[in-house]
Amino acid sequence: MSDASVAVPQPVRRVTLLTDFGTADGYASAMRGVMASRCAHVVLEDASHDVPPGDIPAAAHALSRYWLLYPPATVHVVVVDPGVGGARRALAVSADSRIAIGPDNGVLNPMLERASEVRSITNDRLFVRDPSATFHGRDIFAPVAAFLACGGAMADVGETIDNPVRLPRAEPVMQDERVLGRIVHVDRFGNLITNIGASLAHEKAVWIAERRIGALHTTYADVLSGELLALIGSTGMVEISVRDGSAAQVLGAGRGVTIELRPDSN
Amino acid sequence: MSDASVAVPQPVRRVTLLTDFGTADGYASAMRGVMASRCAHVVLEDASHDVPPGDIPAAAHALSRYWLLYPPATVHVVVVDPGVGGARRALAVSADSRIAIGPDNGVLNPMLERASEVRSITNDRLFVRDPSATFHGRDIFAPVAAFLACGGAMADVGETIDNPVRLPRAEPVMQDERVLGRIVHVDRFGNLITNIGASLAHEKAVWIAERRIGALHTTYADVLSGELLALIGSTGMVEISVRDGSAAQVLGAGRGVTIELRPDSN
Amino acid sequence: MSDASVAVPQPVRRVTLLTDFGTADGYASAMRGVMASRCAHVVLEDASHDVPPGDIPAAAHALSRYWLLYPPATVHVVVVDPGVGGARRALAVSADSRIAIGPDNGVLNPMLERASEVRSITNDRLFVRDPSATFHGRDIFAPVAAFLACGGAMADVGETIDNPVRLPRAEPVMQDERVLGRIVHVDRFGNLITNIGASLAHEKAVWIAERRIGALHTTYADVLSGELLALIGSTGMVEISVRDGSAAQVLGAGRGVTIELRPDSN
Repeated sequence: MSDASVAVPQPVRRVTLLTDFGTADGYASAMRGVMASRCAHVVLEDASHDVPPGDIPAAAHALSRYWLLYPPATVHVVVVDPGVGGARRALAVSADSRIAIGPDNGVLNPMLERASEVRSITNDRLFVRDPSATFHGRDIFAPVAAFLACGGAMADVGETIDNPVRLPRAEPVMQDERVLGRIVHVDRFGNLITNIGASLAHEKAVWIAERRIGALHTTYADVLSGELLALIGSTGMVEISVRDGSAAQVLGAGRGVTIELRPDSN
Repeated sequence: MSDASVAVPQPVRRVTLLTDFGTADGYASAMRGVMASRCAHVVLEDASHDVPPGDIPAAAHALSRYWLLYPPATVHVVVVDPGVGGARRALAVSADSRIAIGPDNGVLNPMLERASEVRSITNDRLFVRDPSATFHGRDIFAPVAAFLACGGAMADVGETIDNPVRLPRAEPVMQDERVLGRIVHVDRFGNLITNIGASLAHEKAVWIAERRIGALHTTYADVLSGELLALIGSTGMVEISVRDGSAAQVLGAGRGVTIELRPDSN
Repeated sequence: MSDASVAVPQPVRRVTLLTDFGTADGYASAMRGVMASRCAHVVLEDASHDVPPGDIPAAAHALSRYWLLYPPATVHVVVVDPGVGGARRALAVSADSRIAIGPDNGVLNPMLERASEVRSITNDRLFVRDPSATFHGRDIFAPVAAFLACGGAMADVGETIDNPVRLPRAEPVMQDERVLGRIVHVDRFGNLITNIGASLAHEKAVWIAERRIGALHTTYADVLSGELLALIGSTGMVEISVRDGSAAQVLGAGRGVTIELRPDSN
């Protein structure tokens, strides 16, 4: 008796897509079409196509929010690639049993920090034939992601490398009893997300320029609507927010601005 | 002979997500990752992440458009939650064999109106460990949605309650032969959607302020491009539109503005 | 022994959705709900809901980018339909083993150009009962797409027709040694995409108005940041770009503007 007709449950192989393409031009769907053609059962998920054009730190920040929450074997594709067609390499990264695919420009930073394997994608037999110089998302990243999502081996995409491009470290600095950090991301709600972890904030108050925001609160509901507060955000970092409003607008502050923690007796 | 290798077709369990998160910060994908990790075969669909920040009536309106069109067993997650971390409860609602998950702030109103079961989500063994105070979407709503999508029992999420927060009723008022209603939603096209059902509009004309829009038309094609018209929209309510244009712009009107139906002999 | 319990692997039937609905009003999800209810295993993908309202050429351009990259049997639904409810027909188009569903207003043009079969959708037994006059996406296109995605026959949707509405041809014109074309699309990055194919550009330079952009480059990386360049884009057409910037902004040019190729000795 043949088992040929007996179905094996398909393992779910999810591929997430993070780009700065928008959706209206059809570029993201071109990538999806290539992947669906090459890996029939792949589950395609849009992380976002609304990354500000060319904004590598914003894409890396978004990736940091979700990559490890997906199950093992998920392939995270990130295409924010202002230098597409130039000399930068294409990377495949393995970290904590998840895979990342994207350009070698720092955008994969959150996974590079925990990578067990980094490869330069050079096996052009995996690519769309005659890849264009301007759309590596469709012609290189998508088919390689489909190859890996359908069980292809990392070793087949290219050689390992040990010098991927990384984003500059954004560690806070200690100065006497002060902690000097900075805003690393401004989200849709105008929350100012810093590089200062909760463990540094004990018995301190948050300052921006010479304005005291105050000691750390637990939740937005601790203050009145429209009021500023500092709190530990959902990834364990100090954030500055306005309840039902935008701290970015109220303070006129954005990415890169210095945030200070000072000892506080209040 | 063992049947262990015989696959049982996976029932499709869809979870829809409606939030005001945008997509670019990675928050929506964080929720998706949690759900994919906890319910491997869940089918995740983005309803929208573009609800205006904190706009509970807009989210409730969107939900009203689609929740009942999905098949039974669908789980609809709605996270528009300006008071996240405060005292408001988290709800699981069963209505017409579909399930809703979201904060107890009125956003689930369309399903509450037909609910057979409303529970306060309190079983923290279902949550992400050490849930943050600012991201219940990821830490509470997503894992509970995954639990229910994978066949978990409503009874396991928490106790039933009988006093969920509801949005104020938006019923039109009869005054002699007039019907006084109001605009409950303005859509992307600038259509003004009212709370006045088709059955009340017989032999009447639509007025806004002291401007007569006219009797009800059947379709946009009844008028010329750029002209105002009133018609019965796709959910059976009176709408005011401009063909190939925006009634909201032409009339300078938005949510809450009074709409009147008056007897009409035209 | 009965085989009734043996699962047959579900073929993956993808349906892509391209609309100008946005997502926040719930219209796109209403379409998805109808399809999920009528074809349980359908895989629903959002191509985009961000097409500018009523912009038929933009939707056709987006469709041209992805329709053929998807596997055979994919159903592409396009609802950009300013005349909804009027006399225009609803179409089902078969081309290269993919199917398109949408209004008869030119929006399906890229697939009509290669169609083997074009039908007017008239079988109202497939529709949502009592279809509204203003939301054919939900009431006609979605259920017909679900019918076809679940293996329904094209012949059952309606009669074949031979006169679908087509967009005006956008072929470049030869004039002595010059090629006169025009901008057919401006993408999110401000790239100006023309109707001039690569084969016409040999030994020529690109001009817009009386400004010489230059000979064709291979990739953005050929010029400095902020500089204009012409190159062959990812679909084989001449494009004008600014590296790390917007050619549309720099040149103040948009759809319809004339682009000229002139012999060039540089």
